[in-house]
Amino acid sequence: MFIKEKEIDGVVQRDFAIEVDGESVPAVIYAKKGATGSRPLILMGHGGSQHKKTEGIRIRAVQYAKEYDWATLAIDAPGHGDRISREEAQQVMIDVGKRVRGEISAPFDNERMNQMMKRMQKAAPEWHAALDAALELDFVNGTHRIGYWGVSMGTAIGVPFVSSEPRIRCAVFGLAGLRAGAIDMQQAATKITIPVEFVFQWEDAVAPRESGIDLFNAFSSTEKTMHINPGGHMDIPSFEGDSWKRFFDRHLAG
Amino acid sequence: MFIKEKEIDGVVQRDFAIEVDGESVPAVIYAKKGATGSRPLILMGHGGSQHKKTEGIRIRAVQYAKEYDWATLAIDAPGHGDRISREEAQQVMIDVGKRVRGEISAPFDNERMNQMMKRMQKAAPEWHAALDAALELDFVNGTHRIGYWGVSMGTAIGVPFVSSEPRIRCAVFGLAGLRAGAIDMQQAATKITIPVEFVFQWEDAVAPRESGIDLFNAFSSTEKTMHINPGGHMDIPSFEGDSWKRFFDRHLAG
Repeated sequence: MFIKEKEIDGVVQRDFAIEVDGESVPAVIYAKKGATGSRPLILMGHGGSQHKKTEGIRIRAVQYAKEYDWATLAIDAPGHGDRISREEAQQVMIDVGKRVRGEISAPFDNERMNQMMKRMQKAAPEWHAALDAALELDFVNGTHRIGYWGVSMGTAIGVPFVSSEPRIRCAVFGLAGLRAGAIDMQQAATKITIPVEFVFQWEDAVAPRESGIDLFNAFSSTEKTMHINPGGHMDIPSFEGDSWKRFFDRHLAG
Repeated sequence: MFIKEKEIDGVVQRDFAIEVDGESVPAVIYAKKGATGSRPLILMGHGGSQHKKTEGIRIRAVQYAKEYDWATLAIDAPGHGDRISREEAQQVMIDVGKRVRGEISAPFDNERMNQMMKRMQKAAPEWHAALDAALELDFVNGTHRIGYWGVSMGTAIGVPFVSSEPRIRCAVFGLAGLRAGAIDMQQAATKITIPVEFVFQWEDAVAPRESGIDLFNAFSSTEKTMHINPGGHMDIPSFEGDSWKRFFDRHLAG
């Protein structure tokens, strides 16, 4: 099943791919070397312009395996990572970078928006299929202890996905808001009842304050916490990373 | 110096009193049995109708001493605890209880408000004096690692106190907001630049959402985090207590 295996600091990074609607979706899973049997599984959705092995995912996945013996699964989102050419990826990175730094504030044009929405809709079925495949692995072994983490585009994709995936027990979202007219997103958020930790940056150029509060308000979860910090889209303080670990540990341990 | 000593689970609770403007202010300090030398010191400001040994302070102070070897200092706020009769305390508790549960939503009348403001202004000099006294103790020994914790009235008193106390390195506030016309509070908050963790309940009958966000915005701290949770004034989730410990540990360890 695995295309490639690489050991990082006692943790094995395994590449594989799944077929969804005739398209190959690149995936990666991390677990401690020699791991067998059931363990907590974290699904990590990368941000816009990033890919499944982006630093923020890879470093955390290795940490999770070493410190907690968790497995971490990531996939390339539609139009990202190994699903586009290096040149296209470069162009997306430049474009997203400008938006994140507030250098472009105009909304996407209609054509671009429609294209993005179409792509996003493919993401949830791909995640369901990737989770199915991961649960078959001997070191995941049908675990019931499954969490989702994804901010920014990882939330835009993650909210619809998590709302339609009853196997997920808790989720970290953030860096995203509810735009006027985003009915699908609002409906998806309303369907979510699992514990949610929602991280938000107070001077985020791509997610205005009100939109973030509206998304937080939309979740139906009894346990939900919004963590607001100063700074822009890329400025989440490192102590929030520690908070995510404890959040997953609280809900997925034992 | 100590009026009374009591051992709780390996931790010593010592009662003392300080004189401020001719008035005796009851104080209590907790530290591990046999502790000597410098250690982190947490100042805990109780809420309205409570007192220096209220459960939320006492239990946490004992935990802090046992788990981290920290000392914890608390005083009775003006018009609270041993500074009023048992009958008066009972009356305040009934009154505050009604407000907290949203059974009274009318603001305090002018006379009551003035009386409260006058009392509040006494609190900061009392805290300064209590801190002076605590720093002389051999098991505190002039420590530079000092944090403040106080929510609700503990924030109403704590913000002006902390803004005028350069010895405090970090503070947990919460369950309070910036009321229209509360110029003193706003000015005090603006003067605060130390790390702040601000906990807020989204359906708090005594602190409307906007007022909480306004107070959070007023702090000048580079590191400040607002934790918003669902529920009323008494519903702070227990995981926030763990977060406070880690916040103090992060800023006061070493």
